[in-house]
Amino acid sequence: MKPEAAPEWRTSAWLNTPEPLSLGHFRGRVVLLHAFQMLCPGCVAHGIPQAQRVAKLFEGVPLAVVGLHTVFEHHAAMGPESLRAFLYEYRVTFPVGIDAPGPDGDPIPCTMRAYAMQGTPTAILIDAQGRLRRQVFGVYDDLLLGAEIGTLLAEAGQQRLDTTPEAPTAERCADGRCEVDAAAVERHPLS
Amino acid sequence: MKPEAAPEWRTSAWLNTPEPLSLGHFRGRVVLLHAFQMLCPGCVAHGIPQAQRVAKLFEGVPLAVVGLHTVFEHHAAMGPESLRAFLYEYRVTFPVGIDAPGPDGDPIPCTMRAYAMQGTPTAILIDAQGRLRRQVFGVYDDLLLGAEIGTLLAEAGQQRLDTTPEAPTAERCADGRCEVDAAAVERHPLS
Amino acid sequence: MKPEAAPEWRTSAWLNTPEPLSLGHFRGRVVLLHAFQMLCPGCVAHGIPQAQRVAKLFEGVPLAVVGLHTVFEHHAAMGPESLRAFLYEYRVTFPVGIDAPGPDGDPIPCTMRAYAMQGTPTAILIDAQGRLRRQVFGVYDDLLLGAEIGTLLAEAGQQRLDTTPEAPTAERCADGRCEVDAAAVERHPLS
Amino acid sequence: MKPEAAPEWRTSAWLNTPEPLSLGHFRGRVVLLHAFQMLCPGCVAHGIPQAQRVAKLFEGVPLAVVGLHTVFEHHAAMGPESLRAFLYEYRVTFPVGIDAPGPDGDPIPCTMRAYAMQGTPTAILIDAQGRLRRQVFGVYDDLLLGAEIGTLLAEAGQQRLDTTPEAPTAERCADGRCEVDAAAVERHPLS
Repeated sequence: MKPEAAPEWRTSAWLNTPEPLSLGHFRGRVVLLHAFQMLCPGCVAHGIPQAQRVAKLFEGVPLAVVGLHTVFEHHAAMGPESLRAFLYEYRVTFPVGIDAPGPDGDPIPCTMRAYAMQGTPTAILIDAQGRLRRQVFGVYDDLLLGAEIGTLLAEAGQQRLDTTPEAPTAERCADGRCEVDAAAVERHPLS
Repeated sequence: MKPEAAPEWRTSAWLNTPEPLSLGHFRGRVVLLHAFQMLCPGCVAHGIPQAQRVAKLFEGVPLAVVGLHTVFEHHAAMGPESLRAFLYEYRVTFPVGIDAPGPDGDPIPCTMRAYAMQGTPTAILIDAQGRLRRQVFGVYDDLLLGAEIGTLLAEAGQQRLDTTPEAPTAERCADGRCEVDAAAVERHPLS
Repeated sequence: MKPEAAPEWRTSAWLNTPEPLSLGHFRGRVVLLHAFQMLCPGCVAHGIPQAQRVAKLFEGVPLAVVGLHTVFEHHAAMGPESLRAFLYEYRVTFPVGIDAPGPDGDPIPCTMRAYAMQGTPTAILIDAQGRLRRQVFGVYDDLLLGAEIGTLLAEAGQQRLDTTPEAPTAERCADGRCEVDAAAVERHPLS
Repeated sequence: MKPEAAPEWRTSAWLNTPEPLSLGHFRGRVVLLHAFQMLCPGCVAHGIPQAQRVAKLFEGVPLAVVGLHTVFEHHAAMGPESLRAFLYEYRVTFPVGIDAPGPDGDPIPCTMRAYAMQGTPTAILIDAQGRLRRQVFGVYDDLLLGAEIGTLLAEAGQQRLDTTPEAPTAERCADGRCEVDAAAVERHPLS
C-alpha cells in the first residue's frame, strides 16, 4: 500500500520547546513520535526510555524524537503541571506536545483519534517526506525499530553506513579477559 | 573510506549446516557474522542471544546470521565436542564455523587475525556485495545494530519498509489498562 | 545499639484500606514500610515492585507491607487524586498512607521528618514489637531485605523454615534439558 | 517433618580450595550448596550469579557457599579442564567440588543421586547443625533465598539484625533528585 501523509497533530501546549512544533517543521527529517501517558506503566518502563535512547544514539542524523501526551483516562491526574514534574524527574528532554482534548466530551484526545491509536505507548514513524510509515502499539523491539529507522534514513539519502553513529563504548569482556593482547592486533581499517 | 571486500573466512569444521559455507555463498544477502567463544561471558550473556534474536526477527529477508568460534584462549577447554554440547544447550541453530587454528603455534586463529579482531564477542556486518561494513568488539546496542541492518538491507534493494517484519505481539498495557475501548477506534490503514 | 520504638506515623488520608491504620495495629507482625513518591523514578522502577513482591511472596506469614506517600517536592503534581490513579495503574494493592504535610510550610512531611528519611525510596523494617530495625535509602538488595525479613520473622517465633513459603514455580532448564529423567529420581523427603 | 542430616557429598576433585572439603568441615556455619553444570544455561544466567552474590553479601557471617559440579549429560564436554577454564572466565572464587561419577555407568553422579536432585541448577541449604533444610530446583527467588538464609542464621545464634551486613551503596535517585537537602535531615540513630 502506498504510504500516505501523516495526519497533522493537534496540541494544546508544548513542553521542552520554546514554541509549538508542527509536523511540517520536521520535513526532511525522520520523526519518531512517541505517544504516551505519564501514568502508563508500559510507557514509563519501555516506551519513554526507548525514545530517550533513540534521541541520544541518533544525535547528529536527520531524525527527531517528539513526545505526545495522549491522555485518555484519569484526566484529572495527568494535567500539565503533573506532566511537567514527570518530565523533570524522568529527565525527558525532547519536545513533548499535549494532545488537544477531544470535542464534545470525547475522552480520547484529537491526535490520538486521528491516528486511531489503540492505547499507550504507541510509537509512530514518519518519513522525511511527512508520510506515516509505521505505528506500533505496545513494546517495540529495539532491533526492529532500529531497522526501520535505518531504512527511513537510507531513503532520506543518509545512505553511507559510516555516517551512522559509532557504537557506544563497548562493555567488553572485563579486565582483559576475552581480549587479545593489544600488541597482537593491528587495527583493521573499517569502512 | 571506500568499503573493501571482507576477508574470506577460514574454518576447520562447521556445525548446524550439512556442508561448509564460504562467504561467497551469501552474495546477495547481508551477513551478520558473530565471532564468539563458548566460555566468554559477554558472548553468552549478550552476543549470542542478540545473534539469535536477529536470526529470528529478520527471517524471510535477505539476511544471514553466521557464527564463528574464534578460540584464542583455553583451547583445550573449547574443542569441537564441547562446542557441539554448548550449541545444543543454548539452542543455537544458525550455522557455526570453527575458525582455523593459527599457523606456527599462533594462539589466535586465522579468521580472527585476518579481521584483526580484538577479542570476543565481535559482531561483523558484511553487505550484499561481500564488503566489510562494520566491526564491533563488545556489546553492540540493539538500536544501532538494527539501524545498520536496515541501512544495508535498503542498499540491497529491500527498500519498502512494509516488507520488514511485523512487530512481535506487543506486551501492551496488561488487562486492558492503557488501552482504549476496541470499539472506539477504527483501524488506520498503515503503509 | 538497643533498638528503639519506631516513631508513630502521621497521615492525612489512606488508600487501599477501609480505615486509617496506626503502627500499633500491626503489633505482632513484622512491617515493611515503603516510603515513596509516585513521580520518583527509583521508587517506580525498584522500590514499589520490590514491596509488591514482598507482599505476594510472604502472604500468610505475620508480615505486613505498608506504603507511605512522602511527598517533599512537586507537591501540586502528586495530590491524592493523582496518587489514586497511580496506584490503580501500577496495581498497588497494599494500604498506602499519605504522609501528613509538614507544619509551617515545611516541604518535608511529618513522618518523613520523624524518621529523618533522606529521600525516596526508603524502606523501613519494624519488628513485631514495634521497634525500628532497619532503614535503607535507595536500592535495597533483595537478598539482604529477604535476610532481614527472615531474621525478624524468626525472632517473632516464625522459626520453622518449612513454614516459609514454597519457592515459586521454577523456571527450570526449558524443555527437559538440564533435567534428569523423572523416573530416575525418587523424591527426597525434605524438611 | 523433622529435618534430617544432609547426605555427605562425594567428590572426585576440588577447585578453588587447597584441599578437599567435607560437609563436616562446615559445622557451625550455614551452607549454600549450589549444584550446577557449566553448560546449563539456567545455571550460568541465574544460579551461579546468585551464589556469587550470596558469597559476597554475606561475607563475615557464618555462611559458606560451595559449588558442586553435577554433570549428568554431555560428560565429555564438561571435564575438569573445561570446568577450570569456566570458573576462571566467570570469576567463580568459592570452592567447587566435582561430583563423583555414578557407579556402573550411571550417568547421574553420586551426590546428585544421594540428594535426588532433579536437574540443574539446584540450590541446597544446610543448617549449622548439618541438616538439610531446603532444596530448590530451578530459579530461586532472591527474597525467598534471603529469608531462609536469615532464618537459618538466626537459628545459629546470629540473631542481632544489626550484625547483618550493611546495604550496599544505594543507587539513589540520581543527581540529588528525590533526595532531601542533606542539611535538612538529622541522621536517625538506627539500631
